[in-house]
Amino acid sequence: MHNTQQNITAGFLIIGNEILSGRTQDKNLNYLAKILNSLGILLQEVRIVSDIEINIVNAVNELKKNYTYVFTSGGIGPTHDDITSQSIAIACNDDLILNQQAAEILYKFYGKDNVNEARLKMAKVPSRAKLLNNPVSSAPGFNIDNIFVMAGIPKIFQAMLDCIVPTLKTGNKIYNQELTIALTESVIAKDLTELQKQFPQVCMGSYPFSGGTSLVFRGINENEVKESCNLMQQIVLNINKEAIIKLDAQ
Amino acid sequence: MHNTQQNITAGFLIIGNEILSGRTQDKNLNYLAKILNSLGILLQEVRIVSDIEINIVNAVNELKKNYTYVFTSGGIGPTHDDITSQSIAIACNDDLILNQQAAEILYKFYGKDNVNEARLKMAKVPSRAKLLNNPVSSAPGFNIDNIFVMAGIPKIFQAMLDCIVPTLKTGNKIYNQELTIALTESVIAKDLTELQKQFPQVCMGSYPFSGGTSLVFRGINENEVKESCNLMQQIVLNINKEAIIKLDAQ
Repeated sequence: MHNTQQNITAGFLIIGNEILSGRTQDKNLNYLAKILNSLGILLQEVRIVSDIEINIVNAVNELKKNYTYVFTSGGIGPTHDDITSQSIAIACNDDLILNQQAAEILYKFYGKDNVNEARLKMAKVPSRAKLLNNPVSSAPGFNIDNIFVMAGIPKIFQAMLDCIVPTLKTGNKIYNQELTIALTESVIAKDLTELQKQFPQVCMGSYPFSGGTSLVFRGINENEVKESCNLMQQIVLNINKEAIIKLDAQ
Repeated sequence: MHNTQQNITAGFLIIGNEILSGRTQDKNLNYLAKILNSLGILLQEVRIVSDIEINIVNAVNELKKNYTYVFTSGGIGPTHDDITSQSIAIACNDDLILNQQAAEILYKFYGKDNVNEARLKMAKVPSRAKLLNNPVSSAPGFNIDNIFVMAGIPKIFQAMLDCIVPTLKTGNKIYNQELTIALTESVIAKDLTELQKQFPQVCMGSYPFSGGTSLVFRGINENEVKESCNLMQQIVLNINKEAIIKLDAQ
């Protein structure tokens, strides 16, 4: 999990006042995180910003230079508060243009007479953008440089993401074992610290819940993940033979 | 909603590999966002970072200089992957010390013989920190400078937050009206843009759903929020008398 040349990384930018005001609960992060994890792409940072151009531009600029991929959700609809496309154009030193292919998609989906100025706004993307398929409601997302710009509505976000998954570079497979025990964290904390030192390439996490603790072992070396998790299992059994609740391996 | 001297703002930092890997779905943001909104505190940015010290320190440093308050969740437990307290100490140029009051709280809750080295780690906070009450499991959060450091477990995060709410400076009351209509966004987009220009201090958002659109009007001037929402209602009625689904005012 430590940085190597093979690491493929990602940042995620969620755009929208409605998330920050509490009106809407984000449902895209968890979906994205699980998919990236399955692809061996390390999601390293998420930011949530309001519908203010300079905030979007600054966040995109920081994320795009730090990670292999940047994904964004929200702000590509037809109304005045949808300012993601223009903000991305600024961040990428590009011009926002009417993309003829995107316009044709809208004409076909809605019927030419039903595409008013507001709807046509959804066909305005940076000049260098490549369109992303929207199988739900046609209005496309887009890709420019290392940025993938998607809708905020979960159903559309997920459909767009599913379409681009085959085009992404994948990283090293991440192996994951989760050991659930009926002991509080503090009982195994010292042993876990020692184990972490012994296996520095395995990322170990401890997550308490009412009645026990889930211990997560993650890494790109399958043997090390298995071995460190096995050793922990032995430690737990030595403390209390009944304390293992379950072991999940992925 | 635009910046004035009276604005009280906030940033939120979520700390934890488990959110970024998709293992755990964050439940604290929406709870915090709603409470801050009710207090007139404008949540302007959220960041989610992994359990890596430099990432936490950098994010805290940026948020603490930009907003009135910074709230954090996660990473204050007894295990090796809980590194929030030490990271906050670094960000605040302070030393991490054993806080005697915090130790006493743990001794009382667990019994002195049950407080091992790992548990005592939860009493280590920056020297200038003031403790935050944890009514659920005793181990305290803390406040230093403009930062409030809380647990990641939702039940504890929420209980800590509820305890500190009375101590926070409140901002201007935010008025909120939400008009739900059976029209697609593009039909009202142009009128909404005009209305936004007419009421620049009201923050207008448009959120489509299957079968219609929710239009949100938010601002600190109650009359302007009501008036702009009323005007939109008239516009919608002129398009289609049956198109108003509901109007919620807070």
